[in-house]
Amino acid sequence: LDDDNLEGFRSEFLDMHPYDQAMFFMEQEKAIRLQIYTYLSPEEIGDIMESMDEEDTQVLMAEMDPRFASMVLAEMSADNAVDILNELEKDQVASFLTIMDKEAAEEIKQLLHYEEKTAGSIMTTEFVATYKTYTAQQTMQQLKEDAPEAETIYYLYVLDKDKRLVGVLSLRDLIVANENTLIEDIMSEKIVAVSVGKDQEEVAQMMRDYDFLALPVVDFQDHLLGIITVDDILDVMEEEASEDYSKLAGVSDMDKPHDNAFVSARKRLPWLIILLFLGMFTASLIGRFEETLNQVAVLAIFIPLIAGMAGNTGTQALAVAVRGLANGDYGKQGKAKLVMREACTGLINGIVCGLVITLVIYLWKDSIYLGLLVGISIAATLLVATLAGALVPILMERMHIDPAVASGPFITTINDIISILIYFGMATVFMGFLT
Amino acid sequence: LDDDNLEGFRSEFLDMHPYDQAMFFMEQEKAIRLQIYTYLSPEEIGDIMESMDEEDTQVLMAEMDPRFASMVLAEMSADNAVDILNELEKDQVASFLTIMDKEAAEEIKQLLHYEEKTAGSIMTTEFVATYKTYTAQQTMQQLKEDAPEAETIYYLYVLDKDKRLVGVLSLRDLIVANENTLIEDIMSEKIVAVSVGKDQEEVAQMMRDYDFLALPVVDFQDHLLGIITVDDILDVMEEEASEDYSKLAGVSDMDKPHDNAFVSARKRLPWLIILLFLGMFTASLIGRFEETLNQVAVLAIFIPLIAGMAGNTGTQALAVAVRGLANGDYGKQGKAKLVMREACTGLINGIVCGLVITLVIYLWKDSIYLGLLVGISIAATLLVATLAGALVPILMERMHIDPAVASGPFITTINDIISILIYFGMATVFMGFLT
Repeated sequence: LDDDNLEGFRSEFLDMHPYDQAMFFMEQEKAIRLQIYTYLSPEEIGDIMESMDEEDTQVLMAEMDPRFASMVLAEMSADNAVDILNELEKDQVASFLTIMDKEAAEEIKQLLHYEEKTAGSIMTTEFVATYKTYTAQQTMQQLKEDAPEAETIYYLYVLDKDKRLVGVLSLRDLIVANENTLIEDIMSEKIVAVSVGKDQEEVAQMMRDYDFLALPVVDFQDHLLGIITVDDILDVMEEEASEDYSKLAGVSDMDKPHDNAFVSARKRLPWLIILLFLGMFTASLIGRFEETLNQVAVLAIFIPLIAGMAGNTGTQALAVAVRGLANGDYGKQGKAKLVMREACTGLINGIVCGLVITLVIYLWKDSIYLGLLVGISIAATLLVATLAGALVPILMERMHIDPAVASGPFITTINDIISILIYFGMATVFMGFLT
Repeated sequence: LDDDNLEGFRSEFLDMHPYDQAMFFMEQEKAIRLQIYTYLSPEEIGDIMESMDEEDTQVLMAEMDPRFASMVLAEMSADNAVDILNELEKDQVASFLTIMDKEAAEEIKQLLHYEEKTAGSIMTTEFVATYKTYTAQQTMQQLKEDAPEAETIYYLYVLDKDKRLVGVLSLRDLIVANENTLIEDIMSEKIVAVSVGKDQEEVAQMMRDYDFLALPVVDFQDHLLGIITVDDILDVMEEEASEDYSKLAGVSDMDKPHDNAFVSARKRLPWLIILLFLGMFTASLIGRFEETLNQVAVLAIFIPLIAGMAGNTGTQALAVAVRGLANGDYGKQGKAKLVMREACTGLINGIVCGLVITLVIYLWKDSIYLGLLVGISIAATLLVATLAGALVPILMERMHIDPAVASGPFITTINDIISILIYFGMATVFMGFLT
């Protein structure tokens, strides 16, 4: 394929879908990629880059000639170009923008202003707009001109003379409309728009609830700034789900397939070190009960069981609360109800598990006091740990911290400490019966 | 509003977006809902139900007159009607289908055959097809007729005379085409289709990679059976993300906001009971070392620390592996590499944490032997626990079990057991130095 047969390569390569092109491209060695750049136009490379992962695009940006790279960026749709530039150093961005085509650079500069993870940062400015005083035929004519550039042509946004968004028109409605109908007679005035600063997770939620293919983005005076299309939302949803999942597991940033062990270790170590010191605190707590342990060494046997159960039930409650808060399932009253429910759930689970363990220990160790000690400790621990799992994310949300930061390992370690205090507290009370 | 003013209510209510209608509707009391049913047509109710959560639709299905309900189902798009019916008892489904309009019932029956969570179960049969020998004008004409019924009109699927899928045409290309062009000259033959039995998670992955608004579903002879639209994929992604998240936390089924404590407790108890018995096993393991503990009670202090670290690092490795497997990031060679990387990561983290803890314990307890015992145990534990976190999901996938079933609490408990064995094994070796 690559024995300098330019035409043969082009016709076969360009016949593939951009995603497949991207896959093929990244499998090649750098030397071959450098050769391919010379075979393709900036527009063709741009199409490929729109189908790539962020990290892969970074590799490409680094190895391309800067002038060629800036031409590629100019050919891409502005929102995707901004995603790529957002990953680069500030002075790199500036240098790309200066050698870039003026018009494209202007568009990108506007989008670069918006904060990451807001509607503004994921929107594109390549939408199709029409005016309410146009006819269907005029609009169709204009659509045909705009179509090749636009990100989506399936919704048309209707503006008044002050460029305010006053209506939406689906292509479907335009197609079935009579040629001379005025747009304002067929447009829908039920506009669902998002403001430019809205969090991307909320935008995704809206897109899912309302089943739109695109949402208009407006400023506070209802001027249309851009649109967000559903393909960008798919990426946002994947990103947010991955983030929540990693946080629950205590991995701040998910490993990539090609990360090496040092990169992976560096990502996970901060968490582990924090947890190590929290664990030392637990150890020093138990250390205070060394005297008790010296007298009744059998107590040590049940430490992992009790701490483990506290961790497990806490993680369950945490997951339910974080997920519920993220979905907006709980209002103000709902949160109080959630806490109440978790308290009852913890109590029920605590009583059931406590009874089971009392019975098992009684049969195993033939000591009803030891059984009762562990049983009551488990019951109390499960109640408190379940409550903690629900309360911590709610409190974090009130303090305007993302509740998902309350990761599983963190809650588990907190609950370890609580459970140890309960267990040894109980043991001190029961001491007379155990020795 | 609801003082029997039918026209007033209709005009205001129908002016809302179906999602807002659904929200409003579910806030009403049952008596008012029953009144609203009489105000609206089956089609209007159907639109509302398409924007509802599954559980809410179940409430409606139960309280509507069965004959009216079957009319509502007939008016909904077939894939959504099937979603609702899938939640009902078999004989309820049969009775709805018998009183339903024949044509709609046939369409639904076809879709009901497909297994849950496959492409077949989420596809709709309401697509727009054309033939490759048609002209652009003929196709446009047909499109105008089909548009009101179709789920999406933005992709047209091109068939040959045997009704096999031979091409795809976007509405965008149709609009810019000359009226007399033949479809086969403007259609794209790069078809990306999914087979009807494909898992819905893989379909979502494809939709995301290729940025399509709809994917055609074919049988093994390339006959077009239906299409899957992006709005259904948004729901699938939400569902799958929620499922993975719950499993990591050891909650088999996510709690709903209106679940009461008994329902919540019943969902979580099975897990807790299993973990309780695994914990008992850990306890009995420590029990074997009771003699050792009697001699050196201080050993007990570090049990939660070591078990906790094993659990945390295992959960991290688990999350990375499960997520990577779900995304299809790792091929056969990739898995071997993943295991190697996790082994190295575990080793690095183990050595760092081991050194830190040795130093801390030496300073705290002034015993280098105790420090070394705990440090080496932590190092060995982290290595094994990290490996376990990566290996368990890979092995599960090889046994054709969903790797996500290997939940955090499960891995944590397994790693508790491993860590205890390592710690007390080491302690037995160090015994001479400790007493």
